[in-house]
Amino acid sequence: MNDHAPNSWEARAAQYALYGFTDLPSVRDRGTVVVTHGEGPYIFDTNGKKYLDSNSGLWNMVAGFDHKGLAEAAKAQYDRFPGYHAFFGRMSDQTVALSETLVNVSPFPRGKVFYTNSGSEANDTLVKMLWFLNRAEGRPQATKILTRKNGYHGVTAVSASMTGKPYNEVFGLPLDGFLHLTCPHYWREGRDGESEAEFTARLAAELDGVIDREGADTIAGFVAEPVMGAGGVIPPPEGYFQAVQAVLRRHGIPLISDEVICGFGRTGEIWGALTYDFMPDAIISSKNLTAGYFPMGAVILGPDLSDRMQAAIDEIEEFPHGFTASGHPVGCAVALKAIDVILNEGLMDRVREGAPRMQAGLSEIAGHPNIGELRGIGYMWALEAVRDRDTKTPFEAALSVSERIANTCTDHGLICRPLGQSVVLCPPFILTDAQMDEMFGKLDAALKQVFSEVA
Amino acid sequence: MNDHAPNSWEARAAQYALYGFTDLPSVRDRGTVVVTHGEGPYIFDTNGKKYLDSNSGLWNMVAGFDHKGLAEAAKAQYDRFPGYHAFFGRMSDQTVALSETLVNVSPFPRGKVFYTNSGSEANDTLVKMLWFLNRAEGRPQATKILTRKNGYHGVTAVSASMTGKPYNEVFGLPLDGFLHLTCPHYWREGRDGESEAEFTARLAAELDGVIDREGADTIAGFVAEPVMGAGGVIPPPEGYFQAVQAVLRRHGIPLISDEVICGFGRTGEIWGALTYDFMPDAIISSKNLTAGYFPMGAVILGPDLSDRMQAAIDEIEEFPHGFTASGHPVGCAVALKAIDVILNEGLMDRVREGAPRMQAGLSEIAGHPNIGELRGIGYMWALEAVRDRDTKTPFEAALSVSERIANTCTDHGLICRPLGQSVVLCPPFILTDAQMDEMFGKLDAALKQVFSEVA
Repeated sequence: MNDHAPNSWEARAAQYALYGFTDLPSVRDRGTVVVTHGEGPYIFDTNGKKYLDSNSGLWNMVAGFDHKGLAEAAKAQYDRFPGYHAFFGRMSDQTVALSETLVNVSPFPRGKVFYTNSGSEANDTLVKMLWFLNRAEGRPQATKILTRKNGYHGVTAVSASMTGKPYNEVFGLPLDGFLHLTCPHYWREGRDGESEAEFTARLAAELDGVIDREGADTIAGFVAEPVMGAGGVIPPPEGYFQAVQAVLRRHGIPLISDEVICGFGRTGEIWGALTYDFMPDAIISSKNLTAGYFPMGAVILGPDLSDRMQAAIDEIEEFPHGFTASGHPVGCAVALKAIDVILNEGLMDRVREGAPRMQAGLSEIAGHPNIGELRGIGYMWALEAVRDRDTKTPFEAALSVSERIANTCTDHGLICRPLGQSVVLCPPFILTDAQMDEMFGKLDAALKQVFSEVA
Repeated sequence: MNDHAPNSWEARAAQYALYGFTDLPSVRDRGTVVVTHGEGPYIFDTNGKKYLDSNSGLWNMVAGFDHKGLAEAAKAQYDRFPGYHAFFGRMSDQTVALSETLVNVSPFPRGKVFYTNSGSEANDTLVKMLWFLNRAEGRPQATKILTRKNGYHGVTAVSASMTGKPYNEVFGLPLDGFLHLTCPHYWREGRDGESEAEFTARLAAELDGVIDREGADTIAGFVAEPVMGAGGVIPPPEGYFQAVQAVLRRHGIPLISDEVICGFGRTGEIWGALTYDFMPDAIISSKNLTAGYFPMGAVILGPDLSDRMQAAIDEIEEFPHGFTASGHPVGCAVALKAIDVILNEGLMDRVREGAPRMQAGLSEIAGHPNIGELRGIGYMWALEAVRDRDTKTPFEAALSVSERIANTCTDHGLICRPLGQSVVLCPPFILTDAQMDEMFGKLDAALKQVFSEVA
């Protein structure tokens, strides 16, 4: 037990906050890290300790923790118009401007935007839209949602039901009608002697089989992250989205790209769908959309879905859905600036230019015999720890290897994220070469230390 | 059809945005009101037109649309630390400070706080908490949620299922296990010759009967707004919460107060539960929590639920729930300031002092024979239109009476909200007497005009 003075920040945090997504044994041993400010990709805690946050906050603070332009955009809008909604045929000018920009930077020739406050709400909204649309078009039985094991789509009861993680069992989730297909992770899920192309074909055939078994007319949509994020950074196998989309098109089922993590530069392109060369029917956006400077999510519907939604809404004269802060003027002003910073001020270019260097440095680290796989693209990577590289045998769960690695990194002033048996690196796009080298060095030292203890 | 130049704000809004909670015939006739800035309780559109917003944005902009102190609090935090999460045992100092403040201003002697980005997410989170807790404590069948018809709890699939509005049928909601009891509206639901006390007793007996029928061990909780907001401003009948709570306690079912609208001053007290003198087991907060200057929601658990939740979480070592922007440092800094402004800088006092004047002015307007009921408390009021006051017969739905009233008010520079057959007035707490008189005058003129057309 980590004892702190009764009025310390750490003690107050433990007394008043209910921790989410937190390994409590680590907090009990080590205390809470209470963060006060940031500088570029670094954060500082109440004890003055400095950490390189190679997790970008939570994938989202891609412009770092003190970006002047983003702060100025927020501050200017606070002076101009600090809050409004988008109900009753009223909305702020910033909301209109961002809607136009989002459609323009989307892969769609035209479309419509619906705002939420998070990726969870955006996925939840998408499901409600599909349920609404199918009922309006005479297919009330078309309610099932297909996602993949290890796919992460959020934490509302519905978006958690989309999420293919076993931990949701503690809530009694998923709800009925949320089906999880095989995780498209070739290294872990590929069979002995199966080529990557054969693996892809098997997953497409599985999808086809599930649709036939359930009945295509019972399925509302297929939702997928281009690269799985919180599932452990899992890029798709070769040809995956082309194969999947062919099956979906044959059955008339929309493909929705959950771009909460991939969107706006993480893969080196504006959309993961662009990186993997497929055209979704709708996009779910959040996180980088505001570079973490404001809570915001968005559903961007492509031409077909937006036309059909608008027609169905016109029929009932009012779409009974919306959040109080949907299209908040400050959030929209921040998003307009974030998009500009990422696309026009060089942030996405940095990912493209830096990705080979990132890959090379991590490849060297991944030479350690207890690293089973290095995987990723752009500025999202994972190193998966194994007891035995040849048999891909993981470490015993009780060893909490990835937690130990992350905690050791934290001791050395590097924040990275433990995920299953992997450690995730997804640094801010502003990272300099020297900062990248610092990340490599601290990660390498932590891995060697932990593996020497447990291997 | 309202035609605008192709590049006008109105045309761009219609092209790129999917409107939520918007009467589309009104927008088609009148165009979108694109809002640029505000001044006290007034907003201004792109044509320079000024409106007194007696809807406080969406109940939430209680300090008005240009509050210097709130804007400064946000701006200072943007300069200091513009974004972080609350996962992995890390959180910002602002998050810790707000958690302590929220527990201190809550009705609870102690408790714990969990952050979300909206009231919808907070209610959704509460339901997940109850499902989790009941499974952890060996009652996996205790999943049902009781709410009331016309209760409004949000728009995620689960919080929309809690919401007792018929419009959710277009989504195929509510989900199974969400049960809606009789709306506690004495004027509309009371039977001939039934006293208010008898009505209350009947509703308590109904609750008892539903619990017996369903089985108390299948029910996770009862969630209620102290005064129904989006249901049409419906204060509870005399003794309602005392009667309901006695039933719930006998069956061991928690009572959760959804204070998204009532919380932080709307009823003249910090909590609606205080106004109606009951002690809930948990509180759902949003809206006034940041005075609309940032998207935020919070679940505040009282001692019993927070102890049991913490014990259940300790058992599994990690609570697998949380939103990326949960406990956002800017949101927390804004909330700390908003709470201070409301409680210590006189905003709540103004509601208390102004409420009798508000009631007197609206009572005079309610003398019109086509007003069936004036109801409300503090700074939340509704006037319900009727064709016949004695028989309480409503106007024909096709007349869209409340929409016509609201649109006529808008023409005269007053924003109020149409809700069913009612018009809602819930102005910012900063309203001056002169502005209140302006509201009365414009509302009275609009009512007379519309009633002269339809009555």
